[in-house]
Order: sequence, then structure tokens, then C-alpha cells
Amino acid sequence: MPNPTAAILIIGDEILTGRTREGNAHFLAGELVKVGIDLRQIRVIGDEHASIVAAVRALSSSHDQLFTSGGIGPTHDDITADAVAEAFRRPIGVREDARAILAAHYAARGVEFTEARLRMARIPEGARLIDNPVSGAPGFSVENCHVMAGVPNIFQAMVAGLLPRLTGGAPLLTRSWQMMVPEASIADQLGALAAAHPGLSFGSYPFVTEGRYGTNLVVRATDPVALEAGFAALKAAFPEGQ
Amino acid sequence: MPNPTAAILIIGDEILTGRTREGNAHFLAGELVKVGIDLRQIRVIGDEHASIVAAVRALSSSHDQLFTSGGIGPTHDDITADAVAEAFRRPIGVREDARAILAAHYAARGVEFTEARLRMARIPEGARLIDNPVSGAPGFSVENCHVMAGVPNIFQAMVAGLLPRLTGGAPLLTRSWQMMVPEASIADQLGALAAAHPGLSFGSYPFVTEGRYGTNLVVRATDPVALEAGFAALKAAFPEGQ
Repeated sequence: MPNPTAAILIIGDEILTGRTREGNAHFLAGELVKVGIDLRQIRVIGDEHASIVAAVRALSSSHDQLFTSGGIGPTHDDITADAVAEAFRRPIGVREDARAILAAHYAARGVEFTEARLRMARIPEGARLIDNPVSGAPGFSVENCHVMAGVPNIFQAMVAGLLPRLTGGAPLLTRSWQMMVPEASIADQLGALAAAHPGLSFGSYPFVTEGRYGTNLVVRATDPVALEAGFAALKAAFPEGQ
Repeated sequence: MPNPTAAILIIGDEILTGRTREGNAHFLAGELVKVGIDLRQIRVIGDEHASIVAAVRALSSSHDQLFTSGGIGPTHDDITADAVAEAFRRPIGVREDARAILAAHYAARGVEFTEARLRMARIPEGARLIDNPVSGAPGFSVENCHVMAGVPNIFQAMVAGLLPRLTGGAPLLTRSWQMMVPEASIADQLGALAAAHPGLSFGSYPFVTEGRYGTNLVVRATDPVALEAGFAALKAAFPEGQ
């Protein structure tokens, strides 16, 4: 059975204007590989209602899982929850269990439960909450769409709580082999290797370090035996690597 | 006249598998702001021909400019040039000017001009070359689609050569105001401020540093006078910031 597929939707003007370097997609990409969910697309869009609705509909219908990051805080530009509700044509309002979680979180810390904070208890009907051990305000899952915070430590905590719930396939395994030569000088040999092993995926990633060209060769497979066979072939083809 | 719009398409399995943390989109986002081109979307997809063709068509037809990064090197997994040619329904082959650039580059460095390297002279018909002062192999523009390398220092050098060619609008200017308070505690006031200044964009970006919550408030405008008026209002509303 093929692995389930996924997309990540990052929501926030601050990324499109170059103010913030997004890191949640990279973090989640690494986690999805470990549980055997194939990430097929990452998309970043701005804080604009119609764009979020359209992207949530497009990506949730074309992938098994959709993860979103950003736009669920207490301020006027936090519009993700309402957009996701509209995308799935569900009503949205303050939900009692989410309100209770926030109330308990603030009470324990002597923090005032303001009207703005109550905004974070607005949850689309029928959604399942995602635990937020960092700052209380929960994320939520509507059908296959998992809505999480943009602040990195909160996003990571939500992912940790969410992923065990989702069914993964076989993890994608990788082995790397580093060559201190330009990519072009091994391209023909690598192409021949890839052609000889149609069941494996071979990638080639050039880099520059201290003015010297190098290339990382990567072989990927879900089957560990096939992976090791491919890696052995890679090492045999390029004995000068490490 | 509104600013031109843009999208960035990043191509590479290594990003979707979490192996590489993508940085070219963040770099280009910062450059586009400076020249007044509004970045509306960043999309990351894998090294898959049909996906690249579909994404290039969708993003180039819905934005004034499309910038791509990745997949134009010499190896078998470098398939961007062929996919872009198909997206714009143009033939592709080795082009004499691109071949001459590569030949001169390698000759000057005593590097062999292999068959694999010749792959990098494959350019869609009618494309305009983008200079690569780092490693020779050019990028290219087909209509509104600008195809550049994924290696960061090459990508940045190509962007530097390309951007002056494109017509920009008014640069988006920003001013920031940092508060060492949680976002929720200023949400109501910020919402009121945004409502009172409909011509300006106010953003709110929470962060955590050394266990304390803080919030960066950002006002954005293309008109410097409007920007300063908005920033003065922001400072007046939140005198405890800095």
C-alpha cells in the first residue's frame, strides 16, 4: 500500500514580506518522513480570507492530510480558524471545552482571560482539539486538516501530540554519500546507477564549502534491504566518497 | 497602479523530505519587497515532471512574475528546464550561446566540458538567459517565468542580475515596535488601531525569548508619509514598547 500523502500550508504575511524565515515546514517535513507520510507540497500564502479558504480546499482534497501553521492567535489578523470553517462549510463559535482549557490555563498562571484571548476558543463545529501544552490555546483537526499555531515551539508541541493519531505508512529511509567533486563530474555515472536500480530513488545535491565544490549523493527507499543494496552500489560506484 | 504580483516555486525532493532547509524563498522575498513586487505565494514541490509543468502553468498565469529555484544542474534529477519548456509549449535543445558560455567558463578553469555539463546548455526556445557569474551555467526567463539554480550562492547571484530587468512598483516600507508582553494582552487595542487606519496594514508577531513572551508589532505601507503617521499612532497607543 502506498504511503499516505500530505501538504503543509503556512499562513502569514510576515513570511511573504521576507520578515520571518519560516521553519515549521522544515521541522514537520522531517517528522513526516519518520512516520511514513509522503509530503508532496508546501505552500505559503498571506493573511487573506479568500486565499486561505481556496488553498485549504485545494490541498485538503488532493492530499490525505493537510497541516496548517499560523493565524490562530488572539489578534485581528488571526483569521485561519474562520477560513478553515468556511472551507469545510461548518459553523464556528466559541466552544465550551476550548474555553475551559483556556480558563484553566490562565487561572493557573494568574493571567486575565480577556475577550481577545476568548477568540482562541473559536473552533469549527465537529473539530477535534489538538493539545497545546505550551500556551493553552488549542489547535484543531477538521476532517483531514490539522490547524496549528505558527510560533515554532507551540507548533512543535502540537505536532508531537497530533502525529501519533495519524496513520503512517512505511518510513522513508535514506543513506548519504559525500563527494568532494562538482556534481557534473559524477552525473553520468549516477544516471547509469539510477537507471540500473529503477526501484530506488537517487538524488544529487551540490554544495560549496570553503570555495570547493562538493556533492551529496542520497539514496532513498522504504525497504531497508533495498536501501542497503542501493547504498552498497553507490559506494562501489564512487569509492572516493565518504 | 498596484504593485506587480509574484510567486516563487521551489523544486526539490530534498526539501520535502526534510533533508534541506530551504532558504532561497526567504532571500528572494526580502529582495522583492525592496523593489515593490508583491510576493503572493511560495510553493515547494518535488522533482516530478508533471507536477512541475502543472505548477509552472498555474503560478505563471495567476501572477505577474514567477521565479523558480532548483533542478537545472547536470544530473538525471535536474528536470526543471524540460518541464518549463513543456509548460510554455516550447521546444528545448542545446542553445549555442549557452554552450559558448559554458565552454568559455570551463576552458578558463581547465575543467573538462563533459556530456553531463552540456545538459546545462539545454534552454527552451526564445528564452532569455540569466547570467551565472558563480559557476557559468545560465538560468533563463521564458515569458514571465524566471528559472534559477537551487544552490544558494548561485541563486542569489542570478537574482542580482535578474531583478533590475523587471519593473517593480513602490517598495513596501515597514516599521516595527517591540513589546515584552503576550500578544493577547494588546490584541484589542491593536484591532482598534487597525480599524482606525484602514489604509495601513498592521501585523502582530508573537515570540518567546528566554522564557518571556513578547510581540513585535509591524506597520506597513508603500507611502512613507502614511507609514510614519501609522507608526506614530502605534507608538502613542503602546508607549511601553521600543
